[in-house]
Order: sequence, then C-alpha cells, then structure tokens
Amino acid sequence: MVKESRVDVLIIGAGPSGLMCANALAGAGVDFRIIDNRPVGVAAGQADGIQPRTIEVLQSYGLADGLLKDGAQMYLCAFYNPGPDGGIERTGRAPDVTAPSARYPFKITIDQGSIESMFIESLKSQEISVDRPIAPSSLEISEDPEELLDPTSYPVKVVLDHVLPSDATPEQEIVYAKYVLGADGAHSWVRKNLGFTMDGEQTDYIWGVIDFVPDTDFPDIRNRAAIHSLNGSCMIIPREGDKVRFYLQMSDKDVMDPETGRIDKRKVTAENLINTARKTFHPYIVNEPKEVDWCSIYIIGQRVASNFSKHDRVFIAGDACHTHSPKAGQGMNASMNDTHNLGTSFPISDGVYFSESLQTAWKLAQVLRGRADISLLKTYEFERQKYAQDLINFDREFSALFSGKPRTSENQEGVTHEQFLRAFQASGGFSSGIGVHYMPSAIVNTIHQDCAPEIIIGERMLPQIFVRAADARPVDIQDMLPADTRFKLLFFVGLLTSEQLAKVRRLAEELQLPTSFLQKYGYSTEGKAQSMFDIIPITAGHKDDVNFLDIPLTFRSHWSKVLIDDTDVTGRLGGGAYSRFGIDEKQITMVVVRPDGYVGMIAPSTALESMDKYFGSFLIGKTLNPGE
Amino acid sequence: MVKESRVDVLIIGAGPSGLMCANALAGAGVDFRIIDNRPVGVAAGQADGIQPRTIEVLQSYGLADGLLKDGAQMYLCAFYNPGPDGGIERTGRAPDVTAPSARYPFKITIDQGSIESMFIESLKSQEISVDRPIAPSSLEISEDPEELLDPTSYPVKVVLDHVLPSDATPEQEIVYAKYVLGADGAHSWVRKNLGFTMDGEQTDYIWGVIDFVPDTDFPDIRNRAAIHSLNGSCMIIPREGDKVRFYLQMSDKDVMDPETGRIDKRKVTAENLINTARKTFHPYIVNEPKEVDWCSIYIIGQRVASNFSKHDRVFIAGDACHTHSPKAGQGMNASMNDTHNLGTSFPISDGVYFSESLQTAWKLAQVLRGRADISLLKTYEFERQKYAQDLINFDREFSALFSGKPRTSENQEGVTHEQFLRAFQASGGFSSGIGVHYMPSAIVNTIHQDCAPEIIIGERMLPQIFVRAADARPVDIQDMLPADTRFKLLFFVGLLTSEQLAKVRRLAEELQLPTSFLQKYGYSTEGKAQSMFDIIPITAGHKDDVNFLDIPLTFRSHWSKVLIDDTDVTGRLGGGAYSRFGIDEKQITMVVVRPDGYVGMIAPSTALESMDKYFGSFLIGKTLNPGE
Repeated sequence: MVKESRVDVLIIGAGPSGLMCANALAGAGVDFRIIDNRPVGVAAGQADGIQPRTIEVLQSYGLADGLLKDGAQMYLCAFYNPGPDGGIERTGRAPDVTAPSARYPFKITIDQGSIESMFIESLKSQEISVDRPIAPSSLEISEDPEELLDPTSYPVKVVLDHVLPSDATPEQEIVYAKYVLGADGAHSWVRKNLGFTMDGEQTDYIWGVIDFVPDTDFPDIRNRAAIHSLNGSCMIIPREGDKVRFYLQMSDKDVMDPETGRIDKRKVTAENLINTARKTFHPYIVNEPKEVDWCSIYIIGQRVASNFSKHDRVFIAGDACHTHSPKAGQGMNASMNDTHNLGTSFPISDGVYFSESLQTAWKLAQVLRGRADISLLKTYEFERQKYAQDLINFDREFSALFSGKPRTSENQEGVTHEQFLRAFQASGGFSSGIGVHYMPSAIVNTIHQDCAPEIIIGERMLPQIFVRAADARPVDIQDMLPADTRFKLLFFVGLLTSEQLAKVRRLAEELQLPTSFLQKYGYSTEGKAQSMFDIIPITAGHKDDVNFLDIPLTFRSHWSKVLIDDTDVTGRLGGGAYSRFGIDEKQITMVVVRPDGYVGMIAPSTALESMDKYFGSFLIGKTLNPGE
Repeated sequence: MVKESRVDVLIIGAGPSGLMCANALAGAGVDFRIIDNRPVGVAAGQADGIQPRTIEVLQSYGLADGLLKDGAQMYLCAFYNPGPDGGIERTGRAPDVTAPSARYPFKITIDQGSIESMFIESLKSQEISVDRPIAPSSLEISEDPEELLDPTSYPVKVVLDHVLPSDATPEQEIVYAKYVLGADGAHSWVRKNLGFTMDGEQTDYIWGVIDFVPDTDFPDIRNRAAIHSLNGSCMIIPREGDKVRFYLQMSDKDVMDPETGRIDKRKVTAENLINTARKTFHPYIVNEPKEVDWCSIYIIGQRVASNFSKHDRVFIAGDACHTHSPKAGQGMNASMNDTHNLGTSFPISDGVYFSESLQTAWKLAQVLRGRADISLLKTYEFERQKYAQDLINFDREFSALFSGKPRTSENQEGVTHEQFLRAFQASGGFSSGIGVHYMPSAIVNTIHQDCAPEIIIGERMLPQIFVRAADARPVDIQDMLPADTRFKLLFFVGLLTSEQLAKVRRLAEELQLPTSFLQKYGYSTEGKAQSMFDIIPITAGHKDDVNFLDIPLTFRSHWSKVLIDDTDVTGRLGGGAYSRFGIDEKQITMVVVRPDGYVGMIAPSTALESMDKYFGSFLIGKTLNPGE
C-alpha cells in the first residue's frame, strides 16, 4: 500500500531558493513540505555573492544579521588594463555598487553552506526540517479547468521516491498538493517534467575559477578587481577571512584536449590556474597559494526558461529558471563542471532567486488563506520572467565586454576601459538588484504616480530614516516593512496644522466605513493567519513639537507606529523625505507597499475609490469570502 | 577536614559588577572564581539604566548587540513645569544625551535580569559558572610587606560558607587568593570587613518608584520626562516594551506613619503611587494601570566608600563603593527598601561599576601574567575614587534641584526651568558617562598632548569612522579597540608622500631595535596570554590611491589593520579625523589606547624615548622578567 498524503505546498529542492521559500511560508503559517534528493545539505565551501537588494530582502525576513557579520563586504571595484610595457596597471577604483539608493552600499560574499544553514536553523526554530533524501519520480497536473480554479482542490499529484542507501528499490509515496514549487536547480527535474525549455546560448569563453588564500603584492587583492590583460581577463572576488576567488579567462590550449576538442579534466588543476593568473597579473607577483579550497572550469552561457509556471499550480524558481555568467556579481554558475556535483547545489544567489521565492510565498499565502483570488498567481511569471530576461541580456553584453581583448595600440578593435566602465556603471541597477521594476498589473497600479513622483511604483520602497514620534528613535522605513505577508499602508499625513488634522480625522472616518478597502479586506489577526494591513502614519514637522496622540487611532495601532520626517537627535540621520519623495505636506498621500517590499499603488486621500479598486482587483472581500 | 584551595582572583558577588569582572577575566584567561550568596540570580523585573559610555564599554567586550536589540532607547528628555492655571505644561524637549561625542546618542533601559543573563551566558560559553549559594564568613589579608609585594603570593585568606537549605550548619572551605574583588553590593560584607566607611549623607527627600504599563494622554510617556509640578516632581523613564517607570516625589503625609515618624510600609501601594501621579500630572489623565510590575519607596542619599582597595590585594567595586540617587539616569538605588531584598541585587548600572570591573580586570590580568608591576594596581583607587566622588557631588546638586519646588509667582525662591535645564545640560559628561577624565599617573602621561590636541589624554578614545585601506570598508575605531587586555597603538602615519614613507620606514626600523618598547614589552601570543600590543596604522589620503602594502610589516600584522582617514563609498561616513584631532599629516603621531579604551599617552615619532619611559614605568621588560 503506497502512502498518500495532502499538503498545500510542496517544495522540491532545498538549496537557497527552496529554503528561502520554505522559511517565508513557515513565517506565514502555510502548510507545506520541503524535500531534497541530497542526503545532507551542501558543506561550507563554494561562495555565494549577495547583492545589496538581497541584503535588504533578507533583512525584511530578519535574517541579515549573520550575513553582515560573517560575510566579506565588497565596496570598491578596481580596474586594471595593459600599461605601456604590456604589464597591467591600475586605471582607477570606483564604488562597486553604483545604485545610489542602496541601503547597503556593498556586496557580500559568503559560502553557500552558511546561507543554507541560516535558513535551516530558522526553520528548525519553527520545528520544520527538510525531508531528505527524497526525489520526485512523477508529477501530474489535472487538466480539469474547474479543479484548477477551485482554491480548495489538490490538482497536482507527485510521486516521491525515498532514496535508500545501497541500491534497494526506493520506497514510494504519493503527495497531492495544491501547489508545487520546483527549486531544484539548473538541471531541474520539475522544469523538464513540465516540458519547459531553456532558451539562450553558450558562448566560447572558457573560464577557470579558484578559491584560495593568496600570497601576492597585488594591491587590490581585497577589492573586487576587473583585470583586462593582454594574456586574458581576471575578476577578483574577495571572500570571507583571507580567502579570495579568481575568475580567470583561459585559453583553449590551456584546458582543451586538442584531439577531442573538449575540456581536458586533467588540466583543471590549481597549478594550471595559478600559472594562468601569473601571466595575467604580470608585473605583480602571485606566489604559491597558502591554501587552495577548490577550483573548476566552466563555459559562460545565458539562458532563461520558456515558462515560469504551469496552470498557476506548479512554479519554478532560482537556477531552474535562469542560468548566467557568474562574473558580473550575478552569482554562481549552473553550467559548471558536473563532476563537482554542483548541478543542483550551486544556484544563482543574486536576489533573483530570493525574490522569486518571496514572491511565490506571499502570493501563495494570501491565496491559500482565501483572501486573494487565484489569479494573483499569474503575476509571478509576469513579473519574474521579464526581469530574468532583462538580466540575462545585460549579462550577455557584460560578459562579452569582459571576455574581449583590451584595446591597445596594436588592437584598435579591443575594448577600452571607458567602454567597460560605462557598462559597469550603467549596470548598477542589475548588479545591485536595486533596479527591479515591475510593470503595471493587478498589483502594480501607476495612475496616481504624480502624488509622490520619486517613490517609483513597481520598484522597492526606498530606504529612508524617520524618527518615531513617541520617542524620537531613528528607524529605517525598510525595517518597518517586514516580509510578513501584510500590505503596509504608509499614510503621509503632512504637517499637522489644525486644518490638516481635520482632514486626517475625516479620512480616518471614511476608512471606518464598511465599504472602504480597509474594512472590506482588513482581516483581523484571528487564528494563525496575519492581518492584511499594517498602517504607518508619517507626519512632517519637528520632533520637538509633534504629539503622537494627535494621530487618530485608525492610523495608530501602537505608539511605535507614528513616524516624523525629521532628523534624529544628532542631526545626522533622517529628515527631508517629503521633499525627496516629492510629497506635498498639505495633502495626505497613501503609499501601498506590497508584502515583498515593492510599491504597488500610490493615491491621494481624495482618491479612496481607486484604492478600493486596486485591492478589489486581487483581494477577496470579507463578505464575499465563501469560507465565512 | 576543611577543604582548602588556591585561586588567583576571588570575586565575591555575582550582580552585574561582579559578573562583568568575571567575564573580563575569563576573556583574559585569568584563573578566578566567582561566588554569590543568592541561590539564583535576580529574576527579570527591576530596570537598569545604561549610559552611552556603558554601551561603548559593552561593545568593547562584544556584548552590546543584545542590549541594543532588547532595551528601550531614550533619545529625548521633555521638561514640564506649572502653567498659568497651575497644571503642568511642556516647556520643551531636548536631547537626553548632551555629550556630543557619544557614539550611541541615547540611554538604554533594560531589566537587570537580562544584563545578568547576558554575562552568565557569555561565561557559560567559556564553561564558567557562578558558585552559589556561598557566602564569605571571614577575610584576612597578610600584613607581611614582603608577601604583599610578591606577585606569586596568596596573601588573602577567605573562609567561605556553603549555604545549605534549611538551617543546617553550612559547610566551610578556605580559599587562598592572590586578589579579591568585593562586588557584593550596597551592604557589602567585604567593605565592612575591611573597615571602610561610607561617607556622605541621606536627604529628607522621599521618592516612590513604580514600574507599570500606563494608560494616559500624557504625550511624553515614551520619552524621559522631568516634571516639576506644584504637587511634587516626577521623572519618567520609558522601559522595554510598553512599560514605563515613574519616580514620584512623595509628601510625608502620603507615606509616613505620623506616630513613629517612619515610613509606613502599608502605604507603599501601587494605588497610592498612582494617586500621587494623578496630582502631579494634572491636567493630563493617568488611568488605572493596565499592569503593575513593582513599586517601592526610597530616600535619596549619596555616599562614597572611604577606600576602594586595601594593600592592592582586596578591591571593592560597584554599589559597594558608592550609592546615589537613581533619577539623573545614574542608575539604581542602594538605600531602597530592604523588604524588597534589593540590598545586594540592585546595584548601580551607569558605567561606573562596569568601568570599575574592567579596570580591575585588565590591570589584574597584566600583573598576574608577570608583565606589569604590582604598583599598577594602585591606579585603580586613584582613578575610580575621584570619579565616584565627583559623580556623587554632581548627583547631590542635581537631586536637590529636581526635588526642589518649581519657581512660581508665589514662590520666587523655587527652581526655574532655566536653572534646571542648565544643570541638566552641564551634566552631560556625567549622565552619559562620557565625561570620565583620569588624572596623570603612571598610566596617563600628558607631556605630548600637543601632538593631537583634540584626543584628550585620560579620556576614552573618541569614536571615529575610518575606511580600511585594503577593502574600503568603513569601521569605527572603537570597534578596533576590543577590551582584550592589549594596548592599542594607533600610528597616524600621515600622507604617504615618498618623503613621509621614508620616515615611516625609519620609524619601523627604530621600533625593531631590541631597546624599543615594542620589542622590550611586546610579548608574543604564546600560550594562553595575549600579546601586549596591537598596532593600527592610519594614513591620510584617499581610498582611490592608497596602497596598503606601502605600510611596513612592523605596522601591518594583517591587511585589515591599515586604515585611511577618508569617507566611505557613499561619502556619508568617515573622513576628517586628522583635522578633527589636530594631527599633522606631515608628522607621525603615536596614540596609546589603554586596554580599557582610555588614551594613556600620545607622542610624536621623534620622542620614542618618552614612549619607552611611559611603558617602562609600569610594565616589566622581557629580559627583566624573573619568571623567564
């Protein structure tokens, strides 16, 4: 008798992407299960690059502290080019993060094992663990349209094989799931099963990668460094402790077997890579490494999955969706040599997969609670696939520039430093992850963008320090936007003159009407599920004058929620937000921040009905809820 | 047969003061034992006020994170005085911390149980626990001068009683200690045993204290607030979560028994205190509290112990040395009603006792390692007693002002708001703990103060952000000054022109000579003991140009040690330190920071011999070490 069970969400794959989603679903109180085909998680070793936006995202889950403490932080990028005598020389240094609004103006490198451990510990504290080693052996989705549209149905049937030691026949079980997330890496079984293709191409560029403790007189060994030499290019990525990673452009003769025309694995040695580095670094000296962690060879390629979801019931995320070059800080590589068994255990860690996971998490949570229409799930593919495609296009260009020969007097066709630097700086939005901009959809409504022209609807809410009205403590607004599945409503209530205060009170009354979105969709915190909204009123004015008790109770669930757009006691933090955002202090401006931190809608207090419409387009009103 | 044992340091009392010292000694690898007469530590409950300087100190032990996360933070102080109709009204708000150099511009309140737990957990991770319940029953110090001066002797004999449940006769043991620290609170047994007196006096001011969750329309309920009303004064101290503490001036008739002239304990009720608050707060409303934690009554007094040490073998610290009023943020109170059993469990938590503990810790560690002369211990009483006396004097004045009647048209003798505000702001150094200034001694040498006029010798090293030369990461210099018993040598090497670089290299050579202090006292890290010095070179110049490899290896133990006085990549942090400190970029200036974070000596590179003399006055040179 095969064991059968039901689960709301089945996550296949416990790499960073799957674990991130599991952690988000656990926080939302969603019934789920996470499986993985590996007997244990990845050991410490291979590095992950974490973008500024990813740090913000992890912070929204309360998970950034460990990263900030343990990871290496990259602030500068140094550029080297051939000098007059043929050896490299420094052309300049520039900030590595060029997105001016980044809250964390640096990238982090940390080994993937630490990232996975962080999530596994967090899940453990909620008494959840990864089921392993378990592999899926079949997946079927109902084709019955009625079943697919019924939020209470379990239309996905997955057969799981419990992998046993030795060659014994695995034990099977059947899981019926409402939703399935395939986070099973570059060689995704889920993706193949769904028949999705990976579109894009490989290049001819061959790169070596080596993690080691260097001994060198190269002065930028602790910065990111982009070296264009006459002997090939190199990217340095500093890592935790004294370790660094080199990405080294290899010549065919260094690594190919001339007879087969394929990579000769025997040539993939630390010695071989260090010898290549020596040529690239001349006149700087690279001594025998003190310690080598790991090395490999790979070929650059950029590909995106043809679809990100099927019937809005099965989704793919992370490396299963996209693979690309590792060198633009866009994370790690999926076409890397399989002999290192990194196929599914070395996913892209650049905010892309985290964003995918958190997107699926909040959307699934609201749909499973019966509070959002199942059509909300369509926005996943809509928002993420476009971004992945843009990213891959950017990466293709950037890789080509970096892999190209440098311009010299002999080679006038080569890449100039100016060309490369321009591409580097123009790419700030991508390489920091800050540039994500979602196009209009049910959950991105731009009609009232002009109320706050500098808070871009479709982009993440900008970090900004305010002071709390009750105790003058400075707080970054991003810290008041935890990824807890709630929509955050920022009420910029303006400068509280008696006239303005009267307006604020009137708005509070309007919002108390049963027809207002706040009442209609404002589920309370009963049971396991969270409430739908969290309100943060933000006044103009000075901390010496503002009385937080002036804010009506509708907008003030706790004394800590009322903020002032003013500097802190030192005068060094905060202030100037109304002007920075282009918000009028004499109006009331409402900003809706989605559960994933992206701005979904802005409206003036005079356009409450468009707010009602916005939420009505994807949420299910309390009176309409069939479950009540 | 009575059990006998030997220990280098015996700490009596495991309140915050004793635990802090234990933790510091554990970090230094010193052999010690800590005992306490209570069967368990204090439960969560009573609040502790943590000053800005204390946060810096805890940070230097790596212990500030929990406090910053869990404690309430006070930024503003609001001042209330009688208005025209007799009720109170706000006169203004001002920053609560007036010391401009405070790294943390706020005070923290947190319950004492959390503080103790933090230390106990830290000790536990080093496999050390408090021996309890154990009480000392006798303490004798040898009077033999030779024995007292012999660093290897155990001249203190302490008999300990193992307190047993029921009334059984306690088991006794004898401990021979090199040093004893009495951290056993306001009613210190150690202090009495040594025959030290407490000098100072009680006042007639009677105060009530209540910890509760308020329900009020008073707008400064989450700020510190100093209320002068016609019905008595009140100080509000916000606490963790939604709790606050009120200190309420009580009238005799509210709390005294008219027949005995003593406090009537039956009148010390939450109801009685809330009723007093209602009169004080008029016209603001104070409703029935949602939750009362605790309340009490006390009489203000300020006293300092006549001595802080005996024969430099037994020391007292914390409440055992000084008691004073709780209301100036100077921590808690020792004369508080004993029925609450707070005699030894409610010590002053204002940086005073922490500083005492850390002073004893580093000094004892160096003496016990045979690297510092035993005379170093004399500086403990010298430095701390003067500070305690100054603090108590300040507190006496401040309390009198706050307990005095406010000035009104009827009472022209009363205290004006201006008087009070002036005292409040003038007291910034004391109430923040930043103002500690040690007078010249063996370990405070001011002869070359003019090389860096704004780094005040005898005060704590100022917080200042630099960027690391190798990776441009911003770092606060205070984070490079951990309390690890090492002296930190900041080498301000100036702007590295080729001329200046030559000077730097010459200095490096001079410091390599066996006669230089660096070689003579620069113990290596062999065995358990730490090295004596940690060197931090700081260049002028720009992060785009500086090559950290230019700094000679003498000054560069690791790539992370080299700092630049420049802004970070955002331009918002760091920079301007040479100019702020008054240091010449064309000279080399050496700044010695003591293990406790205080500046001990400054000298130009041309005055190496005065540096040799400074260290020679209290350290024992390697060749002179009798143990080698």
